[in-house]
Amino acid sequence: MIPDEGLRVAVIGGGAGGMATASRIKRLKPRWVVDVFEKTNYVSHAPCGIPFYLSGIVESVDDLCAYDVNYFRERRGVSVHINSEVVEVRDGEIEVVERGKRKTYEWDRLVFATGARGKGLDIECKDIEGVVCVGSIEEAPLVRERARKYGRIVVVGSGYIGVEIADALSRGKKITVIEQGSHPLPSYDQEIAEVLMRFMSRKVDLRINERVVELEGDERIKKVVTDKKEYKADLVIVAVGVEPNVELARDFGAKIGKTGAIKVNEYLETNIHGVYAVGDCAETRNVITGKPDWIPLAAPANKMGYVAGSNIAGNKIQFPGALRCQLTSFYDMEIGKVGLSEREALKNGFDAVSVTITSRSRASYIPGGGNITIKMVADSESRRVLGVQAIGAGVAKRIYASTALLYKKSDVYDFFFTDFPFYPPKSPVWDPLVIAARNLFRKLDIT
Amino acid sequence: MIPDEGLRVAVIGGGAGGMATASRIKRLKPRWVVDVFEKTNYVSHAPCGIPFYLSGIVESVDDLCAYDVNYFRERRGVSVHINSEVVEVRDGEIEVVERGKRKTYEWDRLVFATGARGKGLDIECKDIEGVVCVGSIEEAPLVRERARKYGRIVVVGSGYIGVEIADALSRGKKITVIEQGSHPLPSYDQEIAEVLMRFMSRKVDLRINERVVELEGDERIKKVVTDKKEYKADLVIVAVGVEPNVELARDFGAKIGKTGAIKVNEYLETNIHGVYAVGDCAETRNVITGKPDWIPLAAPANKMGYVAGSNIAGNKIQFPGALRCQLTSFYDMEIGKVGLSEREALKNGFDAVSVTITSRSRASYIPGGGNITIKMVADSESRRVLGVQAIGAGVAKRIYASTALLYKKSDVYDFFFTDFPFYPPKSPVWDPLVIAARNLFRKLDIT
Repeated sequence: MIPDEGLRVAVIGGGAGGMATASRIKRLKPRWVVDVFEKTNYVSHAPCGIPFYLSGIVESVDDLCAYDVNYFRERRGVSVHINSEVVEVRDGEIEVVERGKRKTYEWDRLVFATGARGKGLDIECKDIEGVVCVGSIEEAPLVRERARKYGRIVVVGSGYIGVEIADALSRGKKITVIEQGSHPLPSYDQEIAEVLMRFMSRKVDLRINERVVELEGDERIKKVVTDKKEYKADLVIVAVGVEPNVELARDFGAKIGKTGAIKVNEYLETNIHGVYAVGDCAETRNVITGKPDWIPLAAPANKMGYVAGSNIAGNKIQFPGALRCQLTSFYDMEIGKVGLSEREALKNGFDAVSVTITSRSRASYIPGGGNITIKMVADSESRRVLGVQAIGAGVAKRIYASTALLYKKSDVYDFFFTDFPFYPPKSPVWDPLVIAARNLFRKLDIT
Repeated sequence: MIPDEGLRVAVIGGGAGGMATASRIKRLKPRWVVDVFEKTNYVSHAPCGIPFYLSGIVESVDDLCAYDVNYFRERRGVSVHINSEVVEVRDGEIEVVERGKRKTYEWDRLVFATGARGKGLDIECKDIEGVVCVGSIEEAPLVRERARKYGRIVVVGSGYIGVEIADALSRGKKITVIEQGSHPLPSYDQEIAEVLMRFMSRKVDLRINERVVELEGDERIKKVVTDKKEYKADLVIVAVGVEPNVELARDFGAKIGKTGAIKVNEYLETNIHGVYAVGDCAETRNVITGKPDWIPLAAPANKMGYVAGSNIAGNKIQFPGALRCQLTSFYDMEIGKVGLSEREALKNGFDAVSVTITSRSRASYIPGGGNITIKMVADSESRRVLGVQAIGAGVAKRIYASTALLYKKSDVYDFFFTDFPFYPPKSPVWDPLVIAARNLFRKLDIT
């Protein structure tokens, strides 16, 4: 048992995972001291909100933070240090540059919540003005200002963030999106991504199978050069993915997993006793494959914080892993995925089969209702459903339901027999998920 | 094994359950003869669509039928007999009044798909013009015509259909809704229903705790008299629930269950070999209680048809039961329920605990997003979640997810750990379902 007073916890990073950990510890152990060290001015920030700030839906960058520093200090009793960069971790103490001054703090328990950072391009471009990486809330105001001012914008990458930024910035002007792969949203299978691609091409200048090889300009960016063409540019937004911040942890001796993120056990403890890792810097378990995976998303980050905080405070809760569940949209087209694509399933050794269906999202007699296209992937031996991808209208509720069923390791019968409601304005009597499952019966030789 | 040709199946009733059964048999056994006998002019009709016809969203009553008679005859090879009322069932044959003529048809397998009918009031009112029961698609055009013509409309009952009709007819005029219980949607608990009640009272003259004792009028309705007041009326719509049509089945010797519907086993066969029952006339199993229940809803009716049809054709599929999952809305307020209310849970012998939370339905920084109120009921011993009720914004996806989790017999940990997506315009980082589950932890002494 841990004594009820006197323990001191240091949390490195004030994003979702870090603040959730700190809050949970203070709730269970109000008398412990919990220090959070955050490099920027912001805590509990949500980079996922940046596209909505760029589009102007969200007015101020402060609004992107669920709670501010004072809330955590006053209401939750967390000692938040902003503008405080941890520069070294040692046994029982850390060294911090806090508002420019070097300081040392002691810890009995340590939490790495150092998050992830936007990856750069594999080319030299560091010093050119007008080339930005999204992902940092601090840079967002500058990006918005420039996006409003300049005409020629090039977005490099079309993962979730790339697609959302393309949506946000293409409302008023024609922008160019350059994707190295064969379709936007590279983690999706072709059948779903091509529905997006057709629609997206009407709104932006979408270039697929093109790789950026050079960014030209002296002081300011002038041109993006790919292996096929050149594009004049006033602003280049690089959104080619993220990578975990693991340097501090590695230097302290924490094991790094194959995924490149910090290795933790089911209690979210690293290989070093009393040292935990949560959120985008930590590895987790993929619920479908059962293997270690890196899933840098805000929802699991918060739950990891809850679990790590509970365990640090003396409980014993396992984190069951995550499903990499994501929703997005492009204009009024909703897009979502949970679990594995067919390509990912095959790569993971499953004997995968799939169906892709297009169906009405609600009763056919309700006018104006759109279609939804669903791809469902199953393992042909166990008949377990491995993943669901969807695009069109009414995607969110099908992704929610699929997430629940995948979490519970459901098979195609479960998808067929789950008693989804019939409500004409929202869902047809045979739900698209049920139709997809029924079509999978045939591929699985179920009569 | 059943021989592959020569079998003749009679299906009594051409609604969702009957047509699904017939279609499934013809798919598996194309050479069998499948006769469907339907009393009205319509097959595959969806009474759930009537409110949208009354509101004018759906223009023609024909649109409410998913497929028409010719589709089933020509594309699916089903022998559909419309305007054909079965008047007697005998061993191996049935007697039908088909377009006015008495005829006899033979059968090797028989399916009762006789549906349900709107209940009347327990008072005499049969012969007064201007008093109608909803639920019959054939009467709908007359109801719509009158509702447009007359000013003073009284709806008796405020279950799903009552609420939807009140929504449909109150857009242009002030109508009165009379409910005998203490709130609209009597199957909901007070905490959720009162949110609806507050909003509904602004749109209609809602009278609760009032019982209709008399309908006054000579030839035409003039007045609705309750145990408290009188209401002048030009049109009275009675929506006080439905009851199963079991007379033909009972007369033939089929067992009727405690619920009043036709008793079937897990293969949907009645106590008589080769005789099945599906849809609103049949009993089913409640997935939460495990007990027989009567759940007259279109989505399970269709799946019962699929299962009975498969079994008649020689397969052996069990119908797992239903969850009584329903969605509705009143103006822009969505409402849904799956599983048991707290009251129903207690009545079924569970040691039920519950929480009711109100939370943002999407990220707080996205403007215009509404609140959702969720009540979650759990069994304090097993920690299994027994039911979820919700009202407000973004209800459909939470009810979909809850349905999936309840189908898989999930507990509060599952609700907490299911990896719901964070997508600012659609869902906050802590989903309301996750918040509700977390709050239940405390009531269940989980730290």
